[in-house]
Amino acid sequence: MIHDFEARAAELLDPGLYDYYAGGAGDEITLRDNVESWKRFALAPRVLRGVQQRDSSVTVLGRRRAHPVFVAPSAYQRGAHVDAELGTARAAAATGSTLVLSSQTTTDPREVAAASGDADRWLQLYMFKDRAVTDDLIQAAKDGGYEALVVTVDFPVGGRRERDLRSGYVVEHPTYVQLTAGPTTPAERHAMHDPSLTWDDIAAIQESSGLPVLLKGILSPADAARAVDLGFAGVIVSNHGGRQLDTVLSGADALTPVVDAVAGRIDVLVDGGIRRGWDVAKALALGADAVLVGRPVLWGLACEGEAGVRQVLEQLVDELDSTLALLGCPRAADLDTSFVTRRA
Amino acid sequence: MIHDFEARAAELLDPGLYDYYAGGAGDEITLRDNVESWKRFALAPRVLRGVQQRDSSVTVLGRRRAHPVFVAPSAYQRGAHVDAELGTARAAAATGSTLVLSSQTTTDPREVAAASGDADRWLQLYMFKDRAVTDDLIQAAKDGGYEALVVTVDFPVGGRRERDLRSGYVVEHPTYVQLTAGPTTPAERHAMHDPSLTWDDIAAIQESSGLPVLLKGILSPADAARAVDLGFAGVIVSNHGGRQLDTVLSGADALTPVVDAVAGRIDVLVDGGIRRGWDVAKALALGADAVLVGRPVLWGLACEGEAGVRQVLEQLVDELDSTLALLGCPRAADLDTSFVTRRA
Amino acid sequence: MIHDFEARAAELLDPGLYDYYAGGAGDEITLRDNVESWKRFALAPRVLRGVQQRDSSVTVLGRRRAHPVFVAPSAYQRGAHVDAELGTARAAAATGSTLVLSSQTTTDPREVAAASGDADRWLQLYMFKDRAVTDDLIQAAKDGGYEALVVTVDFPVGGRRERDLRSGYVVEHPTYVQLTAGPTTPAERHAMHDPSLTWDDIAAIQESSGLPVLLKGILSPADAARAVDLGFAGVIVSNHGGRQLDTVLSGADALTPVVDAVAGRIDVLVDGGIRRGWDVAKALALGADAVLVGRPVLWGLACEGEAGVRQVLEQLVDELDSTLALLGCPRAADLDTSFVTRRA
Amino acid sequence: MIHDFEARAAELLDPGLYDYYAGGAGDEITLRDNVESWKRFALAPRVLRGVQQRDSSVTVLGRRRAHPVFVAPSAYQRGAHVDAELGTARAAAATGSTLVLSSQTTTDPREVAAASGDADRWLQLYMFKDRAVTDDLIQAAKDGGYEALVVTVDFPVGGRRERDLRSGYVVEHPTYVQLTAGPTTPAERHAMHDPSLTWDDIAAIQESSGLPVLLKGILSPADAARAVDLGFAGVIVSNHGGRQLDTVLSGADALTPVVDAVAGRIDVLVDGGIRRGWDVAKALALGADAVLVGRPVLWGLACEGEAGVRQVLEQLVDELDSTLALLGCPRAADLDTSFVTRRA
Repeated sequence: MIHDFEARAAELLDPGLYDYYAGGAGDEITLRDNVESWKRFALAPRVLRGVQQRDSSVTVLGRRRAHPVFVAPSAYQRGAHVDAELGTARAAAATGSTLVLSSQTTTDPREVAAASGDADRWLQLYMFKDRAVTDDLIQAAKDGGYEALVVTVDFPVGGRRERDLRSGYVVEHPTYVQLTAGPTTPAERHAMHDPSLTWDDIAAIQESSGLPVLLKGILSPADAARAVDLGFAGVIVSNHGGRQLDTVLSGADALTPVVDAVAGRIDVLVDGGIRRGWDVAKALALGADAVLVGRPVLWGLACEGEAGVRQVLEQLVDELDSTLALLGCPRAADLDTSFVTRRA
Repeated sequence: MIHDFEARAAELLDPGLYDYYAGGAGDEITLRDNVESWKRFALAPRVLRGVQQRDSSVTVLGRRRAHPVFVAPSAYQRGAHVDAELGTARAAAATGSTLVLSSQTTTDPREVAAASGDADRWLQLYMFKDRAVTDDLIQAAKDGGYEALVVTVDFPVGGRRERDLRSGYVVEHPTYVQLTAGPTTPAERHAMHDPSLTWDDIAAIQESSGLPVLLKGILSPADAARAVDLGFAGVIVSNHGGRQLDTVLSGADALTPVVDAVAGRIDVLVDGGIRRGWDVAKALALGADAVLVGRPVLWGLACEGEAGVRQVLEQLVDELDSTLALLGCPRAADLDTSFVTRRA
Repeated sequence: MIHDFEARAAELLDPGLYDYYAGGAGDEITLRDNVESWKRFALAPRVLRGVQQRDSSVTVLGRRRAHPVFVAPSAYQRGAHVDAELGTARAAAATGSTLVLSSQTTTDPREVAAASGDADRWLQLYMFKDRAVTDDLIQAAKDGGYEALVVTVDFPVGGRRERDLRSGYVVEHPTYVQLTAGPTTPAERHAMHDPSLTWDDIAAIQESSGLPVLLKGILSPADAARAVDLGFAGVIVSNHGGRQLDTVLSGADALTPVVDAVAGRIDVLVDGGIRRGWDVAKALALGADAVLVGRPVLWGLACEGEAGVRQVLEQLVDELDSTLALLGCPRAADLDTSFVTRRA
Repeated sequence: MIHDFEARAAELLDPGLYDYYAGGAGDEITLRDNVESWKRFALAPRVLRGVQQRDSSVTVLGRRRAHPVFVAPSAYQRGAHVDAELGTARAAAATGSTLVLSSQTTTDPREVAAASGDADRWLQLYMFKDRAVTDDLIQAAKDGGYEALVVTVDFPVGGRRERDLRSGYVVEHPTYVQLTAGPTTPAERHAMHDPSLTWDDIAAIQESSGLPVLLKGILSPADAARAVDLGFAGVIVSNHGGRQLDTVLSGADALTPVVDAVAGRIDVLVDGGIRRGWDVAKALALGADAVLVGRPVLWGLACEGEAGVRQVLEQLVDELDSTLALLGCPRAADLDTSFVTRRA
């Protein structure tokens, strides 16, 4: 079970890497709120609606996906387990999860693509000051048949992660980007990010790459509306797992205003604190098209490699399936706000 | 006292059975909320209203009951105590409680009826894929003079009860249904339930059985209104003791919208988290006609068999009686929303 | 300090008596809420208003009192300390506190009056089934120069105090009432109370006694309005220290609706959970004319007899005085709702 | 880090002085709420706004300051560290923080001024009964080139600080005021304050001193409006670090009504519970022009003297800088209410 993986990963992983994965910015208020805020939404089930046939599928970027549980981009997976990104990719493929590979992958995106077969995969992109590094990643995305780019827009500077400041942890496994950009310390790595980015820069990437771009790290409905206006393919409501600016809204709480602003014109995804299949159902009921799951995947990877990731994803998918039955809403695509209320 | 029975039962019972009884779905958020939500309603007493004569009686299904504290259906009572369902039935009869016998009874419903004498008794019904099993239960209900059927409608599939997944507990005492359907493992037992059920299936049961049917597991006012339209005898607002879908509303919080939707046309009962006579008074003040009490009865049974069940029911009835005095509302049937407010 | 007296009293007192004093009904939710609810009101101070001269005095029953901190009626004080009610009365007199002597006094009210000198004193009255016992108390009130009767109206039956049910504690010191009515067990004592009481019974007492009557135990604005209509001298907003019906509103939360209903026509007092001079200021700002303090007085008595009671009352009066300074409201009589807000 | 300084200071300092610094009035509800209330405001970031150039500067009293993190006045710094007020002043100067020196300085304000160089400095002023003492402080302010007077208006009498009542702690280092007024005990020191103060007294000080006066200790919008009307230079929203009257509003919660009342006509500062750079950003977004930081500076001083203070101020300034980046608001002066919301 996911809770067990989480507990075991805390014991198995190098403490510095565990803290890097588990920690958040500042006092970790948003980190905790990400998980708690889903619990504050109450489900409102209906009965006797003939739920023997369930369908968890969703359509994202115009393409049908077996279910809405996507794998969030997570860095340095080789530190967690020798299976690394290949294990995660294989598990995602086996369970029908769309994979979002991190820019900070410790495996070449082309190798990940090969292991992933014809499963859905997207590549997450940081916009580095040295655009050649970003361009190389885009080329890898094209070479590897990645369907879309997920550009992270909430990292103009690094968040204040005090666990990392205390541990001084340095990942020993080189990332794909390091092979391109040369070896880096953590501080140098943060300094690679370009704080001068504007909307035009990202629009240019979408145009030049020819790949649909989703913006990850949107919390403001005004920014979401702008993403629609500029023709982006989607937005991912996210606070970067509580790792960037403490006390920002949780994904769950930021979701509804963004959904309202987007009004169905592009896809809206959400991440942060999803730990249960019924959290996924709540996200969809609130208007998300899919969700990204990060830390649970890492805990599964850390404990049992590819098999662990598969178990984590299977649990979430199974829980979503039974949630659809118990809600009396057999099709995930039919979930709407009538199935969820905010607790007083 | 009920609290003492609860603590002692945790020590006396086989840990696997205790967890089966005590546990709930997922992270047990709804399980805990069931108990806590009654506490969030504040009582608003009146004074000097001449309360020397109190009357706890209520009318349910057109029949006067000595008080509104009913015994909820609970499975496998032979695992808890050798007195089993016979002890519970005798205690209910002795205290004037309407008994709702579980489909998962480990005693033949006809024997329970015989022990129950002329006391009020209903039979809870699961709709199994193999309708012959359900039909046999209905026949037993008729043979045993059961007044009504309580059809559970919130079990299209089994809830994710992680305590049971961990313990792997298997009840060793055969249920009445098993004698009809053959021996089963827990997984097979869950698989017996029919997820294809619709309103028409239950309406057909009411028609063919000739017995009034109450639907147990209603949380939605729209479903409650439909139950009225289709001629059912009553609805029981319930989340199955927090055992089916975690984070659904508590019975206490779901009650008022259902009462409003039903508007007095059929009976409304509620269960989940009732631990005090003043919880019963709150339920009635909010518009319920009666309540069902589950786990406290099991703790009494586990500790002292029939005598323990009787003490639990007596405590609740006594507390209700003194609550009527202290509220300045000597007749339970006169309780209304003026006696209860939701805390800010 | 009051907190220290509370901690020491828990060690000094016979455990059964301590639990009798400290405990409340049921799960003690209202008992705790009484204290917590004052904390939920925030004070709103003003500055630079020339507060060198402060005046804590209030007018209650048309008579000026040095300050609004009254001593609540508490039973069996001889169990707490040999100084008993005489000590409490002397401390109240010394600090200018109006004393409300309990019906369950272990000292003759006439002796208490003699010790109290010309200080303000009221007598609390239970309406017993045997009216001769009540009549004897009224005669004692007249003999002792008690200014008013405080008739407790929230005790038609005894509350469910589980600490007492567990301890089986029996007070060994006879009360004044026992001397009149004969020795009693606790259960017999509860059974002496008359649940048939109505408004007319109490009105008759006010008429026949010739003493102004305040009704103690009012939580409902409708009951408060009725008290005005029937010509009572005042109401005391109270839930009997959380000892009668668990989960009723705290005094603090019940106060404003009662104040609004009374609209200044008679006096409104409040008790329950007052532990600080600024709690007193909040009660006055919300519209109370005075407050009653119960358990803190008992803790002072238990620890140091008369001297302890005096220290408790002095602390509250001192804290009220400095609160007036810090609020920029030098006269207690000028406190109004502009000085207090309910926290969000 | 600030959290580490806080923990180490609790070990390093004389327990009596630590409690004097760390403690608050009464039950310390406001003391804790000061810190917690900032956390209840959620930040609402925007993205892709080109944040490579950030500017934390603010304009207060018509003068540009490098950033809005001011040093709050704190007493008896020689008790915390031999560097005392000189260390704090040098650290403030080094980090561009405006220093507010306490009336209870253990160093002559002229020496502090000399150590402070041309850095911004204000002098906090208590209005003593013996105005000669206050006049001497004003003269010292003029001699030392202090830019403004900060007159504390929430100290008509001393707050009830129970830690001090218990510890009986007496500061052994003489204050500058003691040199003028003669040696004093803590009780005598409290008694020096003048409770008769009115608005006119402070207005006279502003006129006679020729220095701009800010009023520290304003929580009421009406008082803030009066400060505008009477021509004061600014108000500091403050509850004296939770040390005067328990259960008053936190600075964070009192800020918005004051900002609304002042409507930009004079400067509004706020203190109480600021522990993070993003707390500073929230204060500015809610309309404050700057903030004062007290206890964290003391913890830095206690642990490492001047160097510790510098580290504390640097952390806050660095966190503010990255908060501006992560909020997508590169200029502190552009923060407004669109960047902050109160959590439900």
